Parts: sequence; C-alpha cells; structure tokens
Amino acid sequence: MNAKNRISTVTVSAPATIANLVCGFDILGMALEEPRDFLQVSITDSLGIQITNQDDFDLPTDPVQNVAGVALQAMLNAYPHPAGFNLVSHKQIKPGSGLGSSAASAAGAVVAANILLDQYFSSEQLVQFAMAGEELASGVRHADNVAPCVYGGITLIRSLLPPDIIPLSVPELFVTVIHPQIEIKTSDARQILRKNVLLKDAIIQWGNIAGLVTGFLKNDHALISRSMTDIIIEPVRSILIPGFKEIKTSSIEAGALGGGIAGSGPSIFMLSADKKAAIDVQNSMKDIYHRLGIDYNVYVTTISQHGVRIENESVYPI
Amino acid sequence: MNAKNRISTVTVSAPATIANLVCGFDILGMALEEPRDFLQVSITDSLGIQITNQDDFDLPTDPVQNVAGVALQAMLNAYPHPAGFNLVSHKQIKPGSGLGSSAASAAGAVVAANILLDQYFSSEQLVQFAMAGEELASGVRHADNVAPCVYGGITLIRSLLPPDIIPLSVPELFVTVIHPQIEIKTSDARQILRKNVLLKDAIIQWGNIAGLVTGFLKNDHALISRSMTDIIIEPVRSILIPGFKEIKTSSIEAGALGGGIAGSGPSIFMLSADKKAAIDVQNSMKDIYHRLGIDYNVYVTTISQHGVRIENESVYPI
Repeated sequence: MNAKNRISTVTVSAPATIANLVCGFDILGMALEEPRDFLQVSITDSLGIQITNQDDFDLPTDPVQNVAGVALQAMLNAYPHPAGFNLVSHKQIKPGSGLGSSAASAAGAVVAANILLDQYFSSEQLVQFAMAGEELASGVRHADNVAPCVYGGITLIRSLLPPDIIPLSVPELFVTVIHPQIEIKTSDARQILRKNVLLKDAIIQWGNIAGLVTGFLKNDHALISRSMTDIIIEPVRSILIPGFKEIKTSSIEAGALGGGIAGSGPSIFMLSADKKAAIDVQNSMKDIYHRLGIDYNVYVTTISQHGVRIENESVYPI
Repeated sequence: MNAKNRISTVTVSAPATIANLVCGFDILGMALEEPRDFLQVSITDSLGIQITNQDDFDLPTDPVQNVAGVALQAMLNAYPHPAGFNLVSHKQIKPGSGLGSSAASAAGAVVAANILLDQYFSSEQLVQFAMAGEELASGVRHADNVAPCVYGGITLIRSLLPPDIIPLSVPELFVTVIHPQIEIKTSDARQILRKNVLLKDAIIQWGNIAGLVTGFLKNDHALISRSMTDIIIEPVRSILIPGFKEIKTSSIEAGALGGGIAGSGPSIFMLSADKKAAIDVQNSMKDIYHRLGIDYNVYVTTISQHGVRIENESVYPI
C-alpha cells in the first residue's frame, strides 16, 4: 500500500474457536479453519459505531448491546484520535454453539478495525478489547476464545491479570465438531461448577494440562491422546449434553485421539491424526444423534494457522 | 563388554533432585549436577540384600528399613531369577534437606543393580521400584524426585496410576540451592496442606504450570520467570522455612529468574540464566542467613543431563 493511500474498508473472516481443550479450563483455546464469520468494517468520518447484520440470527444492532460493538467501543476509547466504524456482519457461527461465536464477532471486528487504524494496537491489546465483548456475551471476561481467534493456532492464556498470552503451536490435526441443536447458556454452564476442587484432583488435572501442552509442542499424538482427560469440569458439564459419553466413546473407537466439550458446550469436538479418522468420527457421531433424534450441524476441519484472516481490502486514495 | 564377561560390581552417583519446581506440585522434578550420593552395588551369589553405610548419617542397614533396600527388594521381587545384592552407600545429600536424599538412595541403587542385571528392567520400571523406597521414607508413593533422578533433566509425571513419565528438557540454567540446617519432615509438610482448593486458584495454578512447561520446552527464560508462581502450596509451606520471603525477594533482585521451596523444604532453590547471577543469588542468600543466625549449606550447580551416572564398573570374566 502506498503511504498516501488509506484503507477505508476491510473484510475479514473470523474463525470458530474451541476453548478449554478438555483439561485446560479457562487457559487453552484453539482456532478452527471452519466455520467462519465474515465482517466488513469501514472507517467513517462520523463518530460512533453503526452495525448492520446480514444474517438470520437477529442479534442486536445497538452497539452497546452487541459484542462486536462493545469491543469496537473499547478500542475507540483507547484510540487517541476521534474515529467511527461501520460494521456489516455476516455470521455463520451459530450463537450458543460453544464454538466461540461471540469471540469471532468481537475479535473479527477489532482485528479488522485495527487494519483501518494502520495496526495502531498490538495483538495483546486487541484481545483485551475483544474480551469486553465476551464480557457482554457471557458475564465473564475470558480470553480462551478471543486469544486463539486473534493469534490463530493453539494459545495458552497463562494469566488474565495481567494478560499473558502464549501462542503454542499449530499441530497438523483434524478436528471433528458436532453441534447438537440444543441450547446451553455459558453463564448456566459456569454456574453448575463447584467452587472448590480436591487438591488431589487438581494435581491430576495439572498433570494432564502439562502433558497436553507438551504433546502439542512436541507434536506427540500419543501424549496428546493420554492427556485429554478432565476429571473436574467435564463430569459436571457433560450432564447437560445428550449422548455425550456415547459420542466420546464411539469417537475414540473410530480413531480419534481424544476430545470433549467445546467451550461450555453443547458442541463436542474430537481431534484426529488424519482426515480418514476425522470422517469416521463424524459418521459415528451422526449415527448416535440420528438414533437419539437430535438435530445437529457437523464439521470436519483443521486447526487454523492464522485466526482472523483478511478476505478483501478496499483502498482509496486520500 | 565381551558377552562372556559379566559386571559384578558397579559404582554410580545419584544426583540431588528438586521436586515441584514451584507450581508443579507432585508432577515436576529436576535433577541437579551436584550434590551426589555414591553407591557401590555388587551382585552376590547369596540371596537377599546387605547394606553398609560409609557416611555419618546413621541410616538403617536393615534392608526393610532402608529406602535403597526396599527399592532393591521391589526389583528382586519382579526379577524371575534368584539374585542378591551388596550395597555400600556413601551419602552426601543430607536426609531431610528437601533435595531428594531418599530418592537418590533408591534410584541410585536400582539403576546400579539394573546394570548388573544386564538392563533387564526399563527406566519406567526402575522408577516404580524406587518409588517403593520413597514410600518408606515419606509415607507417600511419589515420583517427582525418583523420576528426574533416573531420567535426568526435568521430568513431568503426567500420571502416577498408571505411571506416565515424560522427560521434558535440560535447559542450560544455573541453580542456587541453600539448605538451612533445620528439620522439616516431608510427612509434616504434606499434612499442613489443605485438602480443598478454590477452582479459581486451581485455574491460576494450571496456567502457570502450562506456562512453565512451555518455558522449559521453548527455552524461554522470561516465560519461565513469569510462570514460577505458586499460590496454593508455597503460601502454606513457606511458613515453616525461616527467612523464606526475604530470600526469594532478594534472590530475584540479585538476578534469579525465580524459584521457591525445594520439594517439601527446608531447602530453597533459585534458577538463573547465567553463573554470575547464580553466584550473586548465593551471596544474597548467605547474607540473610548470616544475619538470621541460621547455619546452612549452599550450592551453585546446573541441571544434570543424565541423572544417575556410572562412575566405575568392575568387570570379571565368568
């Protein structure tokens, strides 16, 4: 881009993300290649934020009620010059799926807006702004979806206060995700968790977390598989998801390395070492939900390297 | 070695080890280059185990009361042929220091004996046998000292049941260890821990564990430093160690990356990126214990790559 030109409109796609990755409750997240939301953001001469939704999800267009609006406003509050944005949102990630729909809106919007501000903010700051949107969506300021959405791959949120986000790696794994068409609110899924855990259970959990992170960094599939065990959150939350145990067992029989609840559910994800296994897993999942009479969406995809991706830039001379 | 020869006596040295590494309670351990115990093991024609101590620690020589004896007996129980061992122990790692003295005895003995049995057992099995000795010493079957003692470097014990030991890495770090001459029993240090932890604290802890493991694997000193935080065990156990907080603060001011209680204490260890910092840390530790009037031993050393090391083999034709 010539220095005299300024990008006035950019279209990005923001991927679905899976938080927790079984044992890494609130600290691990992973970006998927598909599905993706598409967001077109323009910088405007007028102040403030305008939002238009070009989808069927009936989400609020009032910026203070909209996760992308809240994230963009947090960004504008930190920007030292007056500015405004126009956002057109084409959502494809269903809200309430457990696949980071609100994170995709929030992270997609701020990454796109940052391009229009000549990358004024760092990725870490973008995660902060997007977290303001997450807070609106779930009542909790968490980063395990927005961080992988901004950074891509698998991210570790070592700490939230102060934020410390560590991109881990992008293992060449296949991901099967099934989204049963039932509703679980993130806030409900969080409320049913106990506030205390036994120290001896916490020790088992942190052994598995350390194992999973090591497995990702060393690309050790067997270690990833052995480490994807959650004795604290999954036993409680999985009760809300019909057929969960059966799907997990049959997926592993079909060749999955392991998996569990996507975020707070109800989607279930499984990692596989190759595409054939991922498709076999998909078929075994479908069979179970057909039998249980539950509608679903299902995806076979990979881990996204880049998170939010630029799809199109419109450049005008200024 | 010629196939017709059989090693009848071997001398090994077994290193001091540091369990937990601050946030990795019960799952992480690290082998030090120094100090080391020396153990001479001979295979005997008679059954059973004879133990001689060539040091001043007055440890039991009855094999069922001796950690090395119990470990060797566990090994003999799993060996399909009749055999016996003669052990001469020259301990240099003070019992009760928090530096894995019992683990060095147990692991050193079984690694040496396994050489005499033509490496009949795997490293994982040796850890199991040595854990029987640890159980005698502390009442708990734990592997966070014996695993790094057998494997060297830094090891992750992902799981104890079934055992799953993952050698992580051997970062080129310097270690300063100070051992105040006070006594804390591992069993006491374990008893004062609360049986429950808050989920929100457990989440902070597993973020740090994941960060520490990532720091070791990526050789990221800043990340290692940020992750060496323990909000669950250290605040409770450090009360038993005089001057702990002051030593930690002054060590970090002197250039340490971080550190904390070695195992269940009372020794305190600090990691540093270079030898100068490790010596500065040592001097600041000495100053504090001089002022408090507490006797101590202090070491500046490195992380041991190999754990138990063969010092000498005696080969006789058979």
